[in-house]
Amino acid sequence: MRDFSPAEVRKRQYILQTIKRVFELYAFQPLETPAMEQLSTLMGKYGEEGDRLIFKVLNNGLYEKKDKDKLQQEWDKMLAGPYSTSVLTERAMRYDLTIPFARYVVMHQNDLVFPFKRYQMQPVWRADRPQRGRYREFWQCDADVVGSNSLVNEAELISIYHQVFHELGVPQIKININSRKVLAALASVMGMDDKLVDITVAIDKLDKIGWEGVSKELAQRGLDASSIEFIYKYLSVSGDNEARLNAMEALLGENELAKAGLAELRTTMAYFEQMRQPEWTSELVVDFKLARGLNYYTGIIVEVTTSAVKMGSIGGGGRYDDLTGLFGLKGMSGVGVSFGIDRIYDVIEELGLFPHQYASGSKIILLTMDDAAEAQAIQYVAQLRKSGIPAEYYTEKGKFDKKMKYANKREIPFVGIIGTDELAQGKIAVKNMLSGSQETIDFAALLALLQQ
Amino acid sequence: MRDFSPAEVRKRQYILQTIKRVFELYAFQPLETPAMEQLSTLMGKYGEEGDRLIFKVLNNGLYEKKDKDKLQQEWDKMLAGPYSTSVLTERAMRYDLTIPFARYVVMHQNDLVFPFKRYQMQPVWRADRPQRGRYREFWQCDADVVGSNSLVNEAELISIYHQVFHELGVPQIKININSRKVLAALASVMGMDDKLVDITVAIDKLDKIGWEGVSKELAQRGLDASSIEFIYKYLSVSGDNEARLNAMEALLGENELAKAGLAELRTTMAYFEQMRQPEWTSELVVDFKLARGLNYYTGIIVEVTTSAVKMGSIGGGGRYDDLTGLFGLKGMSGVGVSFGIDRIYDVIEELGLFPHQYASGSKIILLTMDDAAEAQAIQYVAQLRKSGIPAEYYTEKGKFDKKMKYANKREIPFVGIIGTDELAQGKIAVKNMLSGSQETIDFAALLALLQQ
Repeated sequence: MRDFSPAEVRKRQYILQTIKRVFELYAFQPLETPAMEQLSTLMGKYGEEGDRLIFKVLNNGLYEKKDKDKLQQEWDKMLAGPYSTSVLTERAMRYDLTIPFARYVVMHQNDLVFPFKRYQMQPVWRADRPQRGRYREFWQCDADVVGSNSLVNEAELISIYHQVFHELGVPQIKININSRKVLAALASVMGMDDKLVDITVAIDKLDKIGWEGVSKELAQRGLDASSIEFIYKYLSVSGDNEARLNAMEALLGENELAKAGLAELRTTMAYFEQMRQPEWTSELVVDFKLARGLNYYTGIIVEVTTSAVKMGSIGGGGRYDDLTGLFGLKGMSGVGVSFGIDRIYDVIEELGLFPHQYASGSKIILLTMDDAAEAQAIQYVAQLRKSGIPAEYYTEKGKFDKKMKYANKREIPFVGIIGTDELAQGKIAVKNMLSGSQETIDFAALLALLQQ
Repeated sequence: MRDFSPAEVRKRQYILQTIKRVFELYAFQPLETPAMEQLSTLMGKYGEEGDRLIFKVLNNGLYEKKDKDKLQQEWDKMLAGPYSTSVLTERAMRYDLTIPFARYVVMHQNDLVFPFKRYQMQPVWRADRPQRGRYREFWQCDADVVGSNSLVNEAELISIYHQVFHELGVPQIKININSRKVLAALASVMGMDDKLVDITVAIDKLDKIGWEGVSKELAQRGLDASSIEFIYKYLSVSGDNEARLNAMEALLGENELAKAGLAELRTTMAYFEQMRQPEWTSELVVDFKLARGLNYYTGIIVEVTTSAVKMGSIGGGGRYDDLTGLFGLKGMSGVGVSFGIDRIYDVIEELGLFPHQYASGSKIILLTMDDAAEAQAIQYVAQLRKSGIPAEYYTEKGKFDKKMKYANKREIPFVGIIGTDELAQGKIAVKNMLSGSQETIDFAALLALLQQ
């Protein structure tokens, strides 16, 4: 797990605050859930792998427990198989933001008004083997709407992607869009509804292993040559969005699922056109091979990539018809998107797009030649802060060189020096650390300079 | 552990952002450390009680471990006494922000430039029995300076308290200040250096149990009548700050610790006077009975209370001479303060001082009478957002009553209605939900109204 240095926190905050501002503009409400949930709330929700990767928290006061036989039994159970014990552990660390959100909605269903639009930006924990770009503690950043079937929501979430990446200045963004219904129709038209997962898993790999690899995998998964041929046709649909939609209509014909899926793609995109701003440069692209791993998606799905940097998807989401059903509240449809904060950070870093001011918080540091000027320096700093300018006074005694070195290392843009002459004249020698230029001015002029 | 509803998150963010802005003005740098630390980093740092209350995280993959005999031994060890095992658990949840900060400073001592001023605002976890105002997950909010002995830092931290509570509008704030050296001098003058802890623990209770209770406790802790009499004199020092300092000087006389403690009080307060702004109304009060529980404080200590609400201290801190020594870096002095976010929240809530806008994020919701106006409403909302105004469109079909009810429950200040007439005339019927007044205006007028 990682420490975040001041510069890293500032940069991450820049991303998080930008996204938050946009979420708020779109009238999403902030929600925060606790780091620990009941173990039973999380287990069984993320597949077998997930169950294993959930961090479990040891019950406190275990060694004070009197019933050691009982404890021993629980221990034996644990040695025998996956955690089912509740004496050893009853709590677990948040693994994502979706399940806690679903739990929250069900718990508060009588107080909430629907549609309920919430956003949530919090860390989650997974006991994954750490590797490049994958961490055991990382932030998720989600926006979801529950209790509305309107495709206006899908369009708004797509707008949010456009606006956030516009504001962050990330270039060459592609927002791929598909409907899970079209994928389901593909399987259905071939009479292979039961093979839907096999098919999507295989075609999801097209970018990585090419058509040769995919067709081989489809064969291994039991598809015959004519089915593979049909999937090839499905994947060959090309042209602009309108051409793709028309071609898919022709290919999947009268299938009801296909009709519904293509209609929801058209409607979502039409809504989005009413929201689109001329300055947004991201591209919205119909991509019928887009599947998204999670099985709970049932409608529109989206995924965001940038071709400016070699990097996987930096965001994604979709509609799920029944998320709260897991906790006993049926028929509550939801749709949401998520931002991959760590990857977005890496993209912006690699492209050198972070604003310069994130190196240091301070705008100026005041140094004195000796103690005589200390009171004056402290008062100036207080005045600057009063005017909203982050400022500091270097408190340590010693050689002037050492003081300049400190200012330099901290990357503070201005250094103000008060020596004997400056003190007598009521002035400050101000050095611009970027340009190297220096001038001796009074406090009013300094204030004006820093307020620019 | 608690969920935080949208209104609660907004209110907490208002507090946290205010404090953060002030920290940044004072040139503190943000730092974030991971939720989980090595168990060995935390154990033994918070006393026996602390060791017990630290949440330990179960090692993953335990039941896959092959060496079950070893596991069994560890289990037996755990049943026998406090957690010393590393097979069962190697990680623990952050218990405060100070120890992780000390660990960070030692780890990065060669990259950091000192003095290093950092702030940190993150949740911590304690397996305490939950009770009113005490939670198992709560936010801490600390600012510390390490690597400087200058009392300018103490004065700046006191300024931060003044400015934060001024900006939050919390009235009747008292910032009590003392030096641990004066307390140590009290014990020393009586020839009872070894009784320092007994004495401070007892007089710390003066507000709760009165002098009668304190003198009884002092007797129980082995102090004789003349010592108790002397402590009574110590506690009877009164008057304004200057009078108290003078009286204490007279009482503790030539004791070197007393001299040093009183001098650092005078110097800190003199520095602070150079920083004080006329609009700050908090009071800085010398309080010689102030002790602060933690034993690592060695110099100036402070504690913040408000008499506007019945509530314990809402902030506190002080100087510690050797915090990083725990991790092998000696001679690094530090001074810090902390804000009690949960209590500050309760104070502001009880006094009704939260700004009204924290009920809802949205400034306006647009409703349509039927589908004909939908495209128009969506475009208006997009325009409002472009102008920086949080706005939303109610997506659900149904009776108009239901739509108004939704707007009402959400506490959105304005409702814009587009019926058939409004659509034809290019207007919007705008209702002010606070005043109840309604007018029909065009979009430019609506924008102007909402930008006020």
